[in-house]
Amino acid sequence: MNKVVTFGEILMRIAPIGNKKLNQSNQLEYYFGGTEANVAISLSQLGNKTQHITTVSEDFVGKAVKNYLQQYGVDTSLIMDSHHPLGIYFLEAGAVMRSSIISYNRINSAFCNIDVSQIDWDVAFKDCNWFHWTGITPALSNNTYSALKEGLQIASKKGITISADPAYRSDLWNYGKNAIDTLNELVALSNIFIGGPNEINELLGTSYTNQNDDFIKGAKHIIKEHTNLTKVFDKTRTSLNANWHKIKARMWNGTEFTETKELEITHVVDRIGTGDAYAAGLIHGLLHYDDAKALEFANAACALKHTIEGDANLVTEKEIISIIQGNLSGRILR
Amino acid sequence: MNKVVTFGEILMRIAPIGNKKLNQSNQLEYYFGGTEANVAISLSQLGNKTQHITTVSEDFVGKAVKNYLQQYGVDTSLIMDSHHPLGIYFLEAGAVMRSSIISYNRINSAFCNIDVSQIDWDVAFKDCNWFHWTGITPALSNNTYSALKEGLQIASKKGITISADPAYRSDLWNYGKNAIDTLNELVALSNIFIGGPNEINELLGTSYTNQNDDFIKGAKHIIKEHTNLTKVFDKTRTSLNANWHKIKARMWNGTEFTETKELEITHVVDRIGTGDAYAAGLIHGLLHYDDAKALEFANAACALKHTIEGDANLVTEKEIISIIQGNLSGRILR
Amino acid sequence: MNKVVTFGEILMRIAPIGNKKLNQSNQLEYYFGGTEANVAISLSQLGNKTQHITTVSEDFVGKAVKNYLQQYGVDTSLIMDSHHPLGIYFLEAGAVMRSSIISYNRINSAFCNIDVSQIDWDVAFKDCNWFHWTGITPALSNNTYSALKEGLQIASKKGITISADPAYRSDLWNYGKNAIDTLNELVALSNIFIGGPNEINELLGTSYTNQNDDFIKGAKHIIKEHTNLTKVFDKTRTSLNANWHKIKARMWNGTEFTETKELEITHVVDRIGTGDAYAAGLIHGLLHYDDAKALEFANAACALKHTIEGDANLVTEKEIISIIQGNLSGRILR
Amino acid sequence: MNKVVTFGEILMRIAPIGNKKLNQSNQLEYYFGGTEANVAISLSQLGNKTQHITTVSEDFVGKAVKNYLQQYGVDTSLIMDSHHPLGIYFLEAGAVMRSSIISYNRINSAFCNIDVSQIDWDVAFKDCNWFHWTGITPALSNNTYSALKEGLQIASKKGITISADPAYRSDLWNYGKNAIDTLNELVALSNIFIGGPNEINELLGTSYTNQNDDFIKGAKHIIKEHTNLTKVFDKTRTSLNANWHKIKARMWNGTEFTETKELEITHVVDRIGTGDAYAAGLIHGLLHYDDAKALEFANAACALKHTIEGDANLVTEKEIISIIQGNLSGRILR
Amino acid sequence: MNKVVTFGEILMRIAPIGNKKLNQSNQLEYYFGGTEANVAISLSQLGNKTQHITTVSEDFVGKAVKNYLQQYGVDTSLIMDSHHPLGIYFLEAGAVMRSSIISYNRINSAFCNIDVSQIDWDVAFKDCNWFHWTGITPALSNNTYSALKEGLQIASKKGITISADPAYRSDLWNYGKNAIDTLNELVALSNIFIGGPNEINELLGTSYTNQNDDFIKGAKHIIKEHTNLTKVFDKTRTSLNANWHKIKARMWNGTEFTETKELEITHVVDRIGTGDAYAAGLIHGLLHYDDAKALEFANAACALKHTIEGDANLVTEKEIISIIQGNLSGRILR
Amino acid sequence: MNKVVTFGEILMRIAPIGNKKLNQSNQLEYYFGGTEANVAISLSQLGNKTQHITTVSEDFVGKAVKNYLQQYGVDTSLIMDSHHPLGIYFLEAGAVMRSSIISYNRINSAFCNIDVSQIDWDVAFKDCNWFHWTGITPALSNNTYSALKEGLQIASKKGITISADPAYRSDLWNYGKNAIDTLNELVALSNIFIGGPNEINELLGTSYTNQNDDFIKGAKHIIKEHTNLTKVFDKTRTSLNANWHKIKARMWNGTEFTETKELEITHVVDRIGTGDAYAAGLIHGLLHYDDAKALEFANAACALKHTIEGDANLVTEKEIISIIQGNLSGRILR
Repeated sequence: MNKVVTFGEILMRIAPIGNKKLNQSNQLEYYFGGTEANVAISLSQLGNKTQHITTVSEDFVGKAVKNYLQQYGVDTSLIMDSHHPLGIYFLEAGAVMRSSIISYNRINSAFCNIDVSQIDWDVAFKDCNWFHWTGITPALSNNTYSALKEGLQIASKKGITISADPAYRSDLWNYGKNAIDTLNELVALSNIFIGGPNEINELLGTSYTNQNDDFIKGAKHIIKEHTNLTKVFDKTRTSLNANWHKIKARMWNGTEFTETKELEITHVVDRIGTGDAYAAGLIHGLLHYDDAKALEFANAACALKHTIEGDANLVTEKEIISIIQGNLSGRILR
Repeated sequence: MNKVVTFGEILMRIAPIGNKKLNQSNQLEYYFGGTEANVAISLSQLGNKTQHITTVSEDFVGKAVKNYLQQYGVDTSLIMDSHHPLGIYFLEAGAVMRSSIISYNRINSAFCNIDVSQIDWDVAFKDCNWFHWTGITPALSNNTYSALKEGLQIASKKGITISADPAYRSDLWNYGKNAIDTLNELVALSNIFIGGPNEINELLGTSYTNQNDDFIKGAKHIIKEHTNLTKVFDKTRTSLNANWHKIKARMWNGTEFTETKELEITHVVDRIGTGDAYAAGLIHGLLHYDDAKALEFANAACALKHTIEGDANLVTEKEIISIIQGNLSGRILR
Repeated sequence: MNKVVTFGEILMRIAPIGNKKLNQSNQLEYYFGGTEANVAISLSQLGNKTQHITTVSEDFVGKAVKNYLQQYGVDTSLIMDSHHPLGIYFLEAGAVMRSSIISYNRINSAFCNIDVSQIDWDVAFKDCNWFHWTGITPALSNNTYSALKEGLQIASKKGITISADPAYRSDLWNYGKNAIDTLNELVALSNIFIGGPNEINELLGTSYTNQNDDFIKGAKHIIKEHTNLTKVFDKTRTSLNANWHKIKARMWNGTEFTETKELEITHVVDRIGTGDAYAAGLIHGLLHYDDAKALEFANAACALKHTIEGDANLVTEKEIISIIQGNLSGRILR
Repeated sequence: MNKVVTFGEILMRIAPIGNKKLNQSNQLEYYFGGTEANVAISLSQLGNKTQHITTVSEDFVGKAVKNYLQQYGVDTSLIMDSHHPLGIYFLEAGAVMRSSIISYNRINSAFCNIDVSQIDWDVAFKDCNWFHWTGITPALSNNTYSALKEGLQIASKKGITISADPAYRSDLWNYGKNAIDTLNELVALSNIFIGGPNEINELLGTSYTNQNDDFIKGAKHIIKEHTNLTKVFDKTRTSLNANWHKIKARMWNGTEFTETKELEITHVVDRIGTGDAYAAGLIHGLLHYDDAKALEFANAACALKHTIEGDANLVTEKEIISIIQGNLSGRILR
Repeated sequence: MNKVVTFGEILMRIAPIGNKKLNQSNQLEYYFGGTEANVAISLSQLGNKTQHITTVSEDFVGKAVKNYLQQYGVDTSLIMDSHHPLGIYFLEAGAVMRSSIISYNRINSAFCNIDVSQIDWDVAFKDCNWFHWTGITPALSNNTYSALKEGLQIASKKGITISADPAYRSDLWNYGKNAIDTLNELVALSNIFIGGPNEINELLGTSYTNQNDDFIKGAKHIIKEHTNLTKVFDKTRTSLNANWHKIKARMWNGTEFTETKELEITHVVDRIGTGDAYAAGLIHGLLHYDDAKALEFANAACALKHTIEGDANLVTEKEIISIIQGNLSGRILR
Repeated sequence: MNKVVTFGEILMRIAPIGNKKLNQSNQLEYYFGGTEANVAISLSQLGNKTQHITTVSEDFVGKAVKNYLQQYGVDTSLIMDSHHPLGIYFLEAGAVMRSSIISYNRINSAFCNIDVSQIDWDVAFKDCNWFHWTGITPALSNNTYSALKEGLQIASKKGITISADPAYRSDLWNYGKNAIDTLNELVALSNIFIGGPNEINELLGTSYTNQNDDFIKGAKHIIKEHTNLTKVFDKTRTSLNANWHKIKARMWNGTEFTETKELEITHVVDRIGTGDAYAAGLIHGLLHYDDAKALEFANAACALKHTIEGDANLVTEKEIISIIQGNLSGRILR
């Protein structure tokens, strides 16, 4: 069985019910989420062995994080405790043209204060064949950067496939490191690049457009720049508004370009974590199918996540395959 | 005043709130539902006298079923108790391309163990002028089949109009009887056929397409085969996805073909029970209007059910008439 | 800082959750609302000083009204108490082609029994530069009519700008006064007319169509008739159904005609109070921008209200400006 | 089978959840309640035929009242509609030493405007052997007084047993009639007096203490005064605080005095309607048992109501009998 | 680390919120529970390795059971799937003298249809040093009896300590086996007896009273009868009513009698599963402390369960130890 | 009118519903709370003018804090914004002997980073006659200590009465200052001491017992030590368990000792903020009554807070007076 290891912060998402604003009701709903942990949960639902490494608060909030991951079958045995609090984000969900607003309380969180020396990467990488990281982790603190780099170096040496989702978030990166240099340093240790012209332009200082031609040029460019990279997977989104999206995916796997058909989500339930659903679908696909089917699988997984509440994609492989087969009418299954 | 009698199982629908999956929250919502009881409730809301016959558990769950039917004015005085439990179905509501999933717990339910000898059909059919049945009932157990057959024979002798909704559900029919033979036997006792090419093909082994021409041919065929039948009413649905449907209805009443205009439900609230809403609208229509208006009424009733939570169509005659008159903008009524 | 004074009834809106009907659940949700108070709250959220004058019940319900207005920064120091109850409206929210239904319990409410002599208009109008009224107030009782008239006369004398939203609701006006004469009397005291051909035709007995040409003719006509009026602002709505609307706004400011682009609300969250959001946006716009931008601002404010639960528009100036700038994709703000 | 007819107003009880105050949350819960209707529902749960006569609003609120009564098996066929609204009461539930607060919105309600001429008492009293009234009804309006008086006169003539619960509520009686004279006039038409020294003192202007001796004297006095009366049933309550009560009942049936043992309710769930539960238990008891057992039954029914949410006592005869038999430990029944 | 294996049915508990009756609201709450699984969860919370063996439905309900156990760290890798549904129980929670009512839907459940041949006891008992069973399991079906007997025989051979909670439930045992003979047969394979005079009398046909003297005599008697037994642990409960209990525990460990102090639960939150909390506390205690402290620990664990919602005891060892140390004031821990 | 100024941190309390643990449900409820702000809200409910000074996050969470204070009439015009997050505490509510657990996320919060230079004490203290502080504020950070000290010095100079609630919380005070020295420094600037032997012993290093005699000695001692102090007010609590408390209050006002009668709270709704309710009641009492009545008022206010959900005491002066008058039965007020 495949084993995928992920590493990253888990936040508690706290939000009023439905489209209410915080000052309209004292009823809240919470989910846990974290871009890398979302990937782990999704991969676990798809039948893969997974382990997530992070640091949580040593209180009942941190305990609930572990309960949450365990519930979905993610191994939590390497999760560390800290006397710092768990990071939080508050969400006011928008609708139509009104944007959702997220407010973070994550500075100085348990994960930002991770103790690198406590991570036993050798235990983590035992029987592991995939390691996934995102650009959020090195953006948080020097500790999290160091821990990730160490993990990547060890994984790389062990020949574990490494997927990079190097999303650059300019509102983070407040601890002193140069974002672009650092991301390039870490991408250089990776094999699969999840991103498109935007991400490539950020890393390489280029200006590829969003056209397929330019996507291919950019993909070749980043593969040339970072020679460990072999394949580039991108997704594109058209947002009519907060409730109505269309998504499509494309790839350059070193030899060929493929693009999926577009899927339309006319009634978005929850947009958060859809990128993570794509990444999880992609990893599962690359572990089990050929590249083109992996891409279709990733796109369909991403589409389905829009219909799931919370941060993680709780759908099954069977449901995703059914979407690929064109069953889009959502008829009741008895 | 008209009196319509219905006979069939009532299940408890249990579901998480909104689009949540069962493992995401311990909050649930329940409704009672049963295809024939849904018809009775809807007919009661439309101003008709109704009586539903079934067997429920002798505990507080069964008591709540009676409370529920009584609330909406359905006569429950012939409902029987059993030491077997009430049937249940769990629902995880899908969205967009994600299917809703239903899981049943109905084998060996109170209704499956119905005691045929306890039903006093003479009391039930006193002042009754319509009896409605569906293909679910004979599919459940030999007991339910026998009870239904007895009811149909008595109703037929009394000259009560009988409407048949002979939906064939292949996942049922596990007690030994041949589904097709049995359904034909029961349809032969009926006067109004609710179904189209699909249902006709199943019963007659034919292969009519869904085109109007073929619908008419099929309708004529089934009327020829089962000479008690006089009219055939069908509805067609186009599902863009789980949230967006279009519906239309058509009929062959022995002399003419009519088709309604299409109604579009861009934001489906609850799809379950929409077929029952159609049947109820049709029966009400046939009891009060001419065939063509009955068909329009049934289609409009069906459309409105998509906007109602739960299994039963809780709209009024006035609301349905307003839809027929073209008031589709949903403006606030003060 | 600008100060806007509003005067009118506040009702308690009580409704089942979601699309449920009242007899489907004993869970309810409440909001306070009133067309003029909604304007005050919205103007307060946009950064203006506001004061609302009304009469509420002297019990904990009335106290909660004051708490509610204070929460959003509206001055409640002139609100009066009465031993009559607060007015209420029950709402069953429709969907798609099913209309929402509102049932009022407001006859003989605290506000209808307002004691005109208790209102200290001089205190209210201190530092005030805008007074807003609607046609609901004079429709309720002779007391409310007299109070409003007095307020308008004093405001007019003080040179305060007066905006009139003279919606004629034929189901009200049960206390003996002639609606049309009365509304004309009060519009004559006003400077800004919020309404279009419908409202103008009602007041003047004319028959202008909804075309822009006719709108301009009607606007000129009403300005000619009531010489205090200088500008006419209208909005038009296309309702595909209860969940899907398109809105647009237009004006004749005495010298030029302008029309906004159309905004489409594909997934309406709450339609109630959208007209008040338009009025508030307009007043804010006229206080801070030129007429054309004020119109765009009003239309965008109105669009955003469709995404907010409850009666009042709780959005910020920044959010509205962003809509004017064309940011309609509803992407998450972090 | 016995049939009990009740007559009186039904109010909608609207309250925040738990012990919250109205301004702490916009979540509400509703129940319908009315002292006489509560008696009808309880008697229906105990297996008796019941009919309630009242006037409700002609909107969906009034419709929900009928649904509610029907749910529990109360005949609603004589309930009238009115264009006046249904009466409402808001409740903030207290705890320990903090009092619950009730605020009424019932002046000019549908029931206050009842049209006496619409009541068909002959239909109501067909096969009826018990009529129950309370002092709330004549306190509301001249209409309700007149309707009640007519009902009592007809019932009396037909030899139907009449129970009177002549609670005097000084905050009502605002329409001009003298409360004491009127209550005496109506009690004079009754056979069973539900009340004790307090109520007797109010009616007769006496000053009996709450001691048993004085209770007996008072009972004899009122029976002597109103010669149709034959029996007097009282209950006494010791409230340690809002959550902890002790109740006891006593009677003078013309020949003997009996007192029940005291029942202790250490954790009150809902106090409202406990007096109505007593009255219903008493009527049921007098219809089925001897006087002493009827008294025990009434006291136990009253005790159990303290554990039921809402206004009506939804317990079964079996549950009440079990309390009389001394099963007070509340152990789980499987 | 210790490993405890449990074997038994898991049911879904479905209940209205608070003290509502099922017909008062369509809002429900669910928990999973099963006497043996409750023990496993509690032992897991206390830091022990646990594995639960059962059969669940192969649908999303069964999946949620596994999610639930995994959440609390119980190994689910040996749980089997079945096409039969998961057993259910409905609960209406009582209060004070009103009993809670439970209605079961478990006949023919997934667990009753367990396939004995699928259980790999050798895997289950690897590194296991404790096996716990209750009298519910052999009472359900011949399948469950056979599976349990096989497990006990294997565990016994492997020298694993076996605790028996042989509760006799006369409403079960409908599949033909003699309850008393069967329970004796299984207790004979066990080492620790959890029960007192009631259970001993049922098994041995004796009539020991509930006095401590008789408890000791009975304990000696059952140990003499079933020579594998070495210790007997009992608990006694005084129920003032459904909300107010007092509990105490006692033991005869073959050489000495000990009794704990009494703990008073003045405000019971949830009584279900308190016996399982006792059993789990006892097993944990016997694995870590001496017999007398184990008994105190079990009693304190049981007391704390009364304050936890749901079936399982989610408290920590630290919380239980604190109760033993006499910290009963429930002061806030920061 | 009196004006009371308070200064201190406001935290968001986030908790599962009822007695659930965080991992049992994703439904949460929130309240805002802060010991000093709680005092301000309570004083505002009692009819006093109040202003609270603090720093909140500049996001929608901080905005909701202001909305919350404004709702209850507290002046928020001097509240500052910060890019640091609002402090949070998570609560799992215990029951009976199970402790509630609070977990804080307040390090580095908006308030800890308060900018002393931004506070305009002169505006705050305009028309102010009372300033209240607690020992939480100087315990948080050097910034908060400095700000408080400045405020106390200015208030003292202006002759404003200063009340000190110098609760020493050893888990705070992590920024370097010596707690005892600092608290003494600040108490020296105060006039009213709220505390008893515990607090006095902490400040003075003494060892007074909890007896009244020793309380008086301690009170005299602290007054002697800090000569600005004139009166000492204490409260004592007996906790049978988390749900059942008894409270009493005592004072030494420089010339006489008084003790209130004990109030028993048999069913605690929410314990948090009861000390703040006492302080607010005391301040109101001292502003309006003599010392002895102020003490009774404070004790009754404190008792009532135990019945209110959330952190602030939302009761009226009338309700408190009624408790003092001995109305403890909690009977319904209509």
